[in-house]
Amino acid sequence: MIRPVGSQDFENVWIILKPSFRAGDTYTIDPNVSQSEALDYWVSSGKTAFLADVSGVPMGTYYISPNQAGHGDHVCNCGFVTAPQARGQGIARAMLEHALETAREAGYFSMQFNFVVETNTRAIDIWTRAGFEVIGRLPKAFRHPRGGNIDALIMYKIL
Amino acid sequence: MIRPVGSQDFENVWIILKPSFRAGDTYTIDPNVSQSEALDYWVSSGKTAFLADVSGVPMGTYYISPNQAGHGDHVCNCGFVTAPQARGQGIARAMLEHALETAREAGYFSMQFNFVVETNTRAIDIWTRAGFEVIGRLPKAFRHPRGGNIDALIMYKIL
Repeated sequence: MIRPVGSQDFENVWIILKPSFRAGDTYTIDPNVSQSEALDYWVSSGKTAFLADVSGVPMGTYYISPNQAGHGDHVCNCGFVTAPQARGQGIARAMLEHALETAREAGYFSMQFNFVVETNTRAIDIWTRAGFEVIGRLPKAFRHPRGGNIDALIMYKIL
Repeated sequence: MIRPVGSQDFENVWIILKPSFRAGDTYTIDPNVSQSEALDYWVSSGKTAFLADVSGVPMGTYYISPNQAGHGDHVCNCGFVTAPQARGQGIARAMLEHALETAREAGYFSMQFNFVVETNTRAIDIWTRAGFEVIGRLPKAFRHPRGGNIDALIMYKIL
Protein backbone atom coordinates (compact mmCIF):
# COMPACT_ATOMS: atom_id res chain seq x y z
CA MET A 1 0.00 0.00 0.00
CA ILE A 2 2.94 2.35 0.62
CA ARG A 3 5.75 1.97 -1.88
CA PRO A 4 8.57 3.99 -3.46
CA VAL A 5 7.53 6.38 -6.20
CA GLY A 6 8.59 5.38 -9.71
CA SER A 7 8.38 7.56 -12.82
CA GLN A 8 5.10 5.80 -13.72
CA ASP A 9 3.61 7.30 -10.52
CA PHE A 10 4.47 10.94 -11.22
CA GLU A 11 1.01 11.74 -12.57
CA ASN A 12 -0.64 10.30 -9.45
CA VAL A 13 1.77 12.11 -7.13
CA TRP A 14 0.88 15.37 -8.85
CA ILE A 15 -2.84 14.62 -8.47
CA ILE A 16 -2.26 14.38 -4.70
CA LEU A 17 0.09 17.36 -4.38
CA LYS A 18 -1.80 19.79 -6.62
CA PRO A 19 -4.75 20.66 -4.33
CA SER A 20 -2.44 21.22 -1.33
CA PHE A 21 0.08 23.31 -3.23
CA ARG A 22 -2.61 25.35 -5.02
CA ALA A 23 -4.39 26.04 -1.70
CA GLY A 24 -1.12 27.43 -0.33
CA ASP A 25 -2.19 27.08 3.29
CA THR A 26 0.28 24.45 4.52
CA TYR A 27 3.42 24.33 2.35
CA THR A 28 5.83 27.15 1.55
CA ILE A 29 5.62 26.37 -2.14
CA ASP A 30 4.63 28.90 -4.78
CA PRO A 31 0.87 28.21 -5.15
CA ASN A 32 1.31 28.60 -8.91
CA VAL A 33 4.05 25.97 -9.07
CA SER A 34 4.02 23.92 -12.30
CA GLN A 35 3.65 20.15 -12.31
CA SER A 36 7.29 19.60 -13.28
CA GLU A 37 8.60 22.02 -10.63
CA ALA A 38 6.41 20.40 -7.98
CA LEU A 39 7.60 16.90 -8.90
CA ASP A 40 11.16 18.15 -9.01
CA TYR A 41 10.75 19.47 -5.47
CA TRP A 42 9.02 16.34 -4.16
CA VAL A 43 10.86 13.41 -5.73
CA SER A 44 14.34 14.71 -6.52
CA SER A 45 16.99 16.91 -4.85
CA GLY A 46 18.21 13.98 -2.74
CA LYS A 47 14.72 13.00 -1.62
CA THR A 48 13.13 9.55 -1.63
CA ALA A 49 9.39 9.71 -2.23
CA PHE A 50 6.67 7.19 -1.45
CA LEU A 51 3.10 6.77 -2.66
CA ALA A 52 0.20 5.41 -0.63
CA ASP A 53 -2.57 3.91 -2.71
CA VAL A 54 -5.57 1.75 -1.96
CA SER A 55 -6.61 -0.55 -4.83
CA GLY A 56 -4.74 1.68 -7.25
CA VAL A 57 -6.37 4.90 -6.03
CA PRO A 58 -3.69 7.43 -4.95
CA MET A 59 -4.32 8.47 -1.32
CA GLY A 60 -1.16 10.18 -0.15
CA THR A 61 2.53 10.76 -0.73
CA TYR A 62 5.52 11.55 1.42
CA TYR A 63 9.25 12.11 0.97
CA ILE A 64 12.22 11.58 3.24
CA SER A 65 15.63 13.21 2.92
CA PRO A 66 18.54 14.40 5.07
CA ASN A 67 17.57 17.75 6.60
CA GLN A 68 21.12 19.07 6.37
CA ALA A 69 24.30 17.95 4.62
CA GLY A 70 27.71 17.17 6.13
CA HIS A 71 27.74 16.82 9.91
CA GLY A 72 23.99 17.37 10.12
CA ASP A 73 22.89 14.54 7.82
CA HIS A 74 21.90 12.18 10.68
CA VAL A 75 18.69 14.23 11.04
CA CYS A 76 16.05 13.58 8.39
CA ASN A 77 13.19 15.68 7.12
CA CYS A 78 9.86 14.50 5.70
CA GLY A 79 6.92 16.07 3.92
CA PHE A 80 3.45 14.51 3.79
CA VAL A 81 0.41 15.25 1.65
CA THR A 82 -2.89 13.39 1.80
CA ALA A 83 -5.36 13.56 -1.09
CA PRO A 84 -8.39 15.72 -0.15
CA GLN A 85 -10.87 12.84 -0.56
CA ALA A 86 -8.67 10.54 1.56
CA ARG A 87 -8.56 12.70 4.71
CA GLY A 88 -9.72 11.29 8.03
CA GLN A 89 -8.97 7.71 6.99
CA GLY A 90 -5.65 7.25 8.76
CA ILE A 91 -3.55 7.75 5.63
CA ALA A 92 -1.32 10.41 7.18
CA ARG A 93 -0.80 8.31 10.30
CA ALA A 94 0.07 5.25 8.20
CA MET A 95 2.54 7.29 6.13
CA LEU A 96 4.13 8.69 9.29
CA GLU A 97 4.60 5.20 10.74
CA HIS A 98 6.13 4.08 7.44
CA ALA A 99 8.41 7.12 7.43
CA LEU A 100 9.58 6.52 11.01
CA GLU A 101 10.38 2.90 10.15
CA THR A 102 12.15 3.95 6.93
CA ALA A 103 14.17 6.54 8.86
CA ARG A 104 15.21 4.06 11.55
CA GLU A 105 16.23 1.49 8.95
CA ALA A 106 18.29 4.14 7.15
CA GLY A 107 20.10 4.84 10.44
CA TYR A 108 18.83 8.36 11.04
CA PHE A 109 19.09 9.70 14.60
CA SER A 110 16.07 12.00 14.53
CA MET A 111 13.34 13.49 12.34
CA GLN A 112 12.72 17.22 12.00
CA PHE A 113 9.80 19.14 10.51
CA ASN A 114 11.05 22.63 9.68
CA PHE A 115 7.82 24.43 9.01
CA VAL A 116 4.49 23.23 10.38
CA VAL A 117 1.93 26.00 9.91
CA GLU A 118 0.21 26.52 13.27
CA THR A 119 -3.28 26.24 11.77
CA ASN A 120 -2.47 22.77 10.41
CA THR A 121 -3.87 21.24 13.59
CA ARG A 122 -4.72 17.91 11.97
CA ALA A 123 -1.02 17.33 11.24
CA ILE A 124 0.18 18.73 14.57
CA ASP A 125 -2.15 16.33 16.42
CA ILE A 126 -0.81 13.33 14.51
CA TRP A 127 2.85 14.33 14.96
CA THR A 128 2.33 15.05 18.66
CA ARG A 129 0.65 11.69 19.31
CA ALA A 130 3.60 10.03 17.58
CA GLY A 131 6.02 11.67 20.02
CA PHE A 132 7.10 14.79 18.15
CA GLU A 133 7.80 17.85 20.26
CA VAL A 134 7.46 21.49 19.30
CA ILE A 135 11.03 22.71 19.78
CA GLY A 136 10.60 26.10 18.12
CA ARG A 137 8.04 28.63 16.97
CA LEU A 138 8.73 31.02 14.08
CA PRO A 139 6.82 34.24 14.71
CA LYS A 140 4.59 35.28 11.80
CA ALA A 141 6.71 33.25 9.37
CA PHE A 142 3.75 32.18 7.19
CA ARG A 143 1.41 34.39 5.19
CA HIS A 144 -1.78 32.37 5.41
CA PRO A 145 -3.99 33.07 2.37
CA ARG A 146 -6.94 33.70 4.71
CA GLY A 147 -5.43 34.08 8.21
CA GLY A 148 -2.84 36.82 7.81
CA ASN A 149 0.69 36.31 9.12
CA ILE A 150 0.76 33.34 11.46
CA ASP A 151 3.41 31.25 13.21
CA ALA A 152 5.09 28.09 12.01
CA LEU A 153 6.30 25.37 14.35
CA ILE A 154 9.47 23.32 14.26
CA MET A 155 8.83 19.76 15.43
CA TYR A 156 11.45 17.15 16.32
CA LYS A 157 11.59 13.55 17.39
CA ILE A 158 14.57 11.42 18.36
CA LEU A 159 14.08 8.02 16.72
CA MET B 1 34.25 47.49 1.63
CA ILE B 2 31.18 45.21 1.43
CA ARG B 3 29.90 44.68 -2.10
CA PRO B 4 28.03 42.12 -4.20
CA VAL B 5 30.07 39.14 -5.35
CA GLY B 6 30.86 39.07 -9.06
CA SER B 7 32.35 36.16 -10.97
CA GLN B 8 35.79 37.80 -10.66
CA ASP B 9 35.47 37.35 -6.86
CA PHE B 10 34.79 33.60 -6.86
CA GLU B 11 38.42 32.71 -6.13
CA ASN B 12 38.50 35.08 -3.14
CA VAL B 13 35.16 33.81 -1.83
CA TRP B 14 36.51 30.27 -1.95
CA ILE B 15 39.67 31.37 -0.08
CA ILE B 16 37.40 32.59 2.72
CA LEU B 17 34.99 29.64 2.71
CA LYS B 18 37.53 26.82 2.39
CA PRO B 19 38.99 26.85 5.95
CA SER B 20 35.51 26.95 7.52
CA PHE B 21 34.04 24.25 5.32
CA ARG B 22 37.11 21.99 5.65
CA ALA B 23 37.07 22.37 9.47
CA GLY B 24 33.43 21.20 9.44
CA ASP B 25 32.71 22.60 12.89
CA THR B 26 30.14 25.29 12.05
CA TYR B 27 28.40 24.58 8.71
CA THR B 28 26.46 21.49 7.68
CA ILE B 29 28.44 21.23 4.46
CA ASP B 30 30.36 18.15 3.43
CA PRO B 31 33.90 18.98 4.68
CA ASN B 32 35.27 17.53 1.43
CA VAL B 33 33.10 19.82 -0.71
CA SER B 34 34.77 20.90 -3.96
CA GLN B 35 35.39 24.53 -4.85
CA SER B 36 32.68 24.54 -7.52
CA GLU B 37 30.11 22.85 -5.25
CA ALA B 38 30.92 25.29 -2.44
CA LEU B 39 30.53 28.31 -4.73
CA ASP B 40 27.36 26.82 -6.16
CA TYR B 41 25.97 26.57 -2.63
CA TRP B 42 27.10 30.06 -1.60
CA VAL B 43 26.43 32.30 -4.60
CA SER B 44 23.63 30.59 -6.52
CA SER B 45 20.36 28.75 -5.77
CA GLY B 46 18.52 32.05 -5.38
CA LYS B 47 21.12 33.56 -3.06
CA THR B 48 22.76 36.96 -3.27
CA ALA B 49 26.33 36.90 -1.98
CA PHE B 50 28.53 39.74 -0.72
CA LEU B 51 32.27 40.06 -0.18
CA ALA B 52 33.95 42.13 2.53
CA ASP B 53 37.47 43.18 1.67
CA VAL B 54 39.91 45.70 3.10
CA SER B 55 42.34 47.18 0.56
CA GLY B 56 41.67 44.25 -1.74
CA VAL B 57 42.30 41.60 0.94
CA PRO B 58 39.27 39.28 1.29
CA MET B 59 38.05 39.32 4.90
CA GLY B 60 34.60 37.78 4.85
CA THR B 61 31.59 36.80 2.80
CA TYR B 62 27.89 36.42 3.40
CA TYR B 63 24.79 35.49 1.46
CA ILE B 64 21.13 36.42 1.81
CA SER B 65 18.15 34.53 0.38
CA PRO B 66 14.52 33.76 1.12
CA ASN B 67 14.41 31.05 3.81
CA GLN B 68 11.30 29.47 2.30
CA ALA B 69 9.41 29.83 -0.97
CA GLY B 70 5.76 30.75 -1.53
CA HIS B 71 3.98 32.14 1.52
CA GLY B 72 7.15 31.94 3.62
CA ASP B 73 9.39 34.10 1.44
CA HIS B 74 9.08 37.19 3.65
CA VAL B 75 11.59 35.57 6.02
CA CYS B 76 15.20 35.65 4.87
CA ASN B 77 18.16 33.49 5.73
CA CYS B 78 21.85 34.47 5.78
CA GLY B 79 25.16 32.68 6.10
CA PHE B 80 28.38 34.38 7.20
CA VAL B 81 32.01 33.30 7.04
CA THR B 82 34.98 35.37 8.19
CA ALA B 83 38.50 34.58 6.98
CA PRO B 84 40.57 32.98 9.79
CA GLN B 85 43.14 35.80 9.83
CA ALA B 86 40.37 38.44 9.94
CA ARG B 87 38.64 37.24 13.11
CA GLY B 88 38.20 39.58 16.05
CA GLN B 89 38.28 42.67 13.84
CA GLY B 90 34.56 43.36 13.64
CA ILE B 91 34.15 41.88 10.16
CA ALA B 92 31.27 39.57 11.15
CA ARG B 93 29.50 42.42 12.95
CA ALA B 94 29.92 44.71 9.93
CA MET B 95 28.59 42.02 7.60
CA LEU B 96 25.59 41.43 9.89
CA GLU B 97 24.76 45.14 9.92
CA HIS B 98 25.05 45.20 6.13
CA ALA B 99 22.82 42.11 5.88
CA LEU B 100 20.14 43.60 8.16
CA GLU B 101 20.12 46.77 6.07
CA THR B 102 19.99 44.76 2.83
CA ALA B 103 17.13 42.66 4.21
CA ARG B 104 15.12 45.71 5.29
CA GLU B 105 15.64 47.39 1.93
CA ALA B 106 14.47 44.21 0.18
CA GLY B 107 11.29 44.30 2.27
CA TYR B 108 11.88 41.18 4.34
CA PHE B 109 9.88 40.88 7.57
CA SER B 110 12.39 38.84 9.56
CA MET B 111 15.72 37.01 9.43
CA GLN B 112 16.16 33.39 10.46
CA PHE B 113 19.30 31.34 11.11
CA ASN B 114 18.35 27.69 10.79
CA PHE B 115 21.37 26.00 12.26
CA VAL B 116 23.75 27.76 14.64
CA VAL B 117 26.03 25.16 16.22
CA GLU B 118 25.93 25.71 19.99
CA THR B 119 29.73 25.81 20.28
CA ASN B 120 29.89 28.72 17.80
CA THR B 121 29.74 31.15 20.72
CA ARG B 122 31.49 33.95 18.82
CA ALA B 123 28.63 34.05 16.32
CA ILE B 124 25.89 33.52 18.94
CA ASP B 125 27.24 36.51 20.92
CA ILE B 126 27.17 38.77 17.86
CA TRP B 127 23.68 37.67 16.79
CA THR B 128 22.33 38.04 20.34
CA ARG B 129 23.75 41.54 20.77
CA ALA B 130 22.07 42.45 17.45
CA GLY B 131 18.68 41.39 18.81
CA PHE B 132 18.38 37.80 17.59
CA GLU B 133 16.57 35.40 19.88
CA VAL B 134 17.07 31.68 20.22
CA ILE B 135 13.61 30.38 19.29
CA GLY B 136 14.52 26.71 19.04
CA ARG B 137 17.14 24.14 19.99
CA LEU B 138 17.73 21.01 17.88
CA PRO B 139 18.89 18.23 20.21
CA LYS B 140 22.17 16.60 19.09
CA ALA B 141 21.58 17.71 15.51
CA PHE B 142 25.27 18.37 14.78
CA ARG B 143 28.13 15.86 14.83
CA HIS B 144 30.98 18.08 15.93
CA PRO B 145 34.29 16.74 14.62
CA ARG B 146 35.75 16.97 18.14
CA GLY B 147 32.78 17.47 20.48
CA GLY B 148 30.47 14.55 19.68
CA ASN B 149 26.78 15.14 18.98
CA ILE B 150 25.81 18.63 20.09
CA ASP B 151 22.81 20.92 19.74
CA ALA B 152 22.12 23.52 17.06
CA LEU B 153 20.14 26.68 17.71
CA ILE B 154 17.53 28.39 15.57
CA MET B 155 17.79 32.16 15.87
CA TYR B 156 15.27 34.73 14.67
CA LYS B 157 14.88 38.48 14.50
CA ILE B 158 11.96 40.57 13.33
CA LEU B 159 13.39 43.42 11.24
